[in-house]
Amino acid sequence: MQCPVPVHRTDRVLLAHGGGGRLTQELIERLFLPAFANPALAARHDGAVFEAQGGPLAFTTDAFVVDPLVFPGGTIGDLAVNGTVNDLAMCGARPVALSAAFILEEGLPMETLERVVGSMRDAALRAGVPVATGDTKVVDRGKADGMFITTSGVGVVEYPVSPAMVRPGDRILVSGPLGAHGVAILSVREGIEFETAIASDTAPLWDAVRGLCESGAEVHCLRDLTRGGLASALNEIAAAAGVGMEIGEAAIPVEAPVRAACELLGLDPLYVANEGRFAAFVSGASADRALEALRAAGCEEATIAGEVVESPAGTVILRSRIGGRRVVDMLSGEQLPRIC
Amino acid sequence: MQCPVPVHRTDRVLLAHGGGGRLTQELIERLFLPAFANPALAARHDGAVFEAQGGPLAFTTDAFVVDPLVFPGGTIGDLAVNGTVNDLAMCGARPVALSAAFILEEGLPMETLERVVGSMRDAALRAGVPVATGDTKVVDRGKADGMFITTSGVGVVEYPVSPAMVRPGDRILVSGPLGAHGVAILSVREGIEFETAIASDTAPLWDAVRGLCESGAEVHCLRDLTRGGLASALNEIAAAAGVGMEIGEAAIPVEAPVRAACELLGLDPLYVANEGRFAAFVSGASADRALEALRAAGCEEATIAGEVVESPAGTVILRSRIGGRRVVDMLSGEQLPRIC
Repeated sequence: MQCPVPVHRTDRVLLAHGGGGRLTQELIERLFLPAFANPALAARHDGAVFEAQGGPLAFTTDAFVVDPLVFPGGTIGDLAVNGTVNDLAMCGARPVALSAAFILEEGLPMETLERVVGSMRDAALRAGVPVATGDTKVVDRGKADGMFITTSGVGVVEYPVSPAMVRPGDRILVSGPLGAHGVAILSVREGIEFETAIASDTAPLWDAVRGLCESGAEVHCLRDLTRGGLASALNEIAAAAGVGMEIGEAAIPVEAPVRAACELLGLDPLYVANEGRFAAFVSGASADRALEALRAAGCEEATIAGEVVESPAGTVILRSRIGGRRVVDMLSGEQLPRIC
Repeated sequence: MQCPVPVHRTDRVLLAHGGGGRLTQELIERLFLPAFANPALAARHDGAVFEAQGGPLAFTTDAFVVDPLVFPGGTIGDLAVNGTVNDLAMCGARPVALSAAFILEEGLPMETLERVVGSMRDAALRAGVPVATGDTKVVDRGKADGMFITTSGVGVVEYPVSPAMVRPGDRILVSGPLGAHGVAILSVREGIEFETAIASDTAPLWDAVRGLCESGAEVHCLRDLTRGGLASALNEIAAAAGVGMEIGEAAIPVEAPVRAACELLGLDPLYVANEGRFAAFVSGASADRALEALRAAGCEEATIAGEVVESPAGTVILRSRIGGRRVVDMLSGEQLPRIC
């Protein structure tokens, strides 16, 4: 006869939670299945099986190592879900399914894991996409930092866009004020309090992308402004497309408290990570329509921040408020480690 | 004019390699793009875009935290590629695209990263699947353990199988000798040398699955025998399908050196992790044909190890060599942490 083994519920993550045995099963049944309830996950297969029709597929992955795990405006969990939804959106793809792989440090409070998983559930519901498959590993104490999460996503491409489609004459739209995510993280990490609380901008971007693309604007490329910020994103695309770019300092939205915090911390908002902002490259003729569509789709503070030029290829130029021009280079060192 | 910033090649991973700036780009261009050369990756988009037609999709993810990073028969890199290929294969799915997300510890020798990436390239070539998208993060020294890799995979389901299809009368095939992976890892970790070197069994399983399914055998379910080994896999499926199982000790292949090592180390081969072995559930009538097909597809030492019974539901029984019967329970604690 099978002798039931007593299950010791614990308030901390144990190595055995990652061992593939009884405690792993308990974690799945007690935490993950209820949080992410969906048919693919409930099948308890080795992976999720689903139909995805209507266009080519987009497939993306991101590891999240943000420190701290919980910060003003979000957690590592919603950051991971939104980040992957946004990478799909930047491919013009409607998100269809996400995966989540957890690397947990032995001793992590179970309460922290539950809070993070709860915020993933909320973010997935908000974005309308199931967390369809997952994995959990546990490493011994001191061999990780609380938890790391890697999310991957599959989507169906509804609007084909690509860095290769960017051409001189395109306008560069920025979807909203820059820098809040990076400043929010840094303020917690460094224990700095600002007069105005600054919350991360983490948010899903698919609805804004759909609104933009449905407007009839001729959209060539989309890029979220994460690690390395607007400056790195523009440099990457300028290099990939073999074009130059010019942006106007006055047209780049940065909220006053973020600007003040950046000045205090010695940061350039152009390089600070955002987790709910993107740049869109649209034809010059459809720039106004695109701006209107973005604003109607929830990006009320979107701007036309600059334009694509022929030369110098691979270079991004900033026109300053006082009329100067300077090269905005790719981020060279590490500005803010573990920002996402 | 743009002033070229000197790029300092280093022999260690720096925080800035994960910062999204110049060093991240250099890592991508110098290491990842050449290793995984494929059109999706070369597009430098936020994700991979590809066509996948012919059936429903399978989607899977796994985090790899194996210690040590390099061991007899493999590295964390081929383990990750094979593991994800195999999770797809266990869904009856032909692998179409993989993703790889790296979490690196600051100070990791660049040589180690290169070796691991090289073994991923080789494993991906062997399995015939591109690593189509990826991500790299770096955490400060002491906040990870060298490197962790999370791979995800997308496949097209060619042979629909599922735990729910398992029924009484099915035969349980085991694709080859058990326990080599776990013993190989443990022997390095504990500094034990055996008379016969034991190498990990890490290998891709899609060709074996295809051979089995093409044979005309009626295949109901497939499961790889990773963390928790054969015992945990059978328990999971018995619980999911609401059936019992009986396996014969004499019919479960374990090579003599592995058996001896397990005895020495106090391990039960039924619970030891494998990274290139699976169980197949096939109808009783097609068991012989299935065995023949498996053997023809490279699993020369496959056996019919047992059968599915009606009751007691959710329970796995082992018939020992000397005629006794005992319950093989799910792994209860943690036998071998960080085995994959």
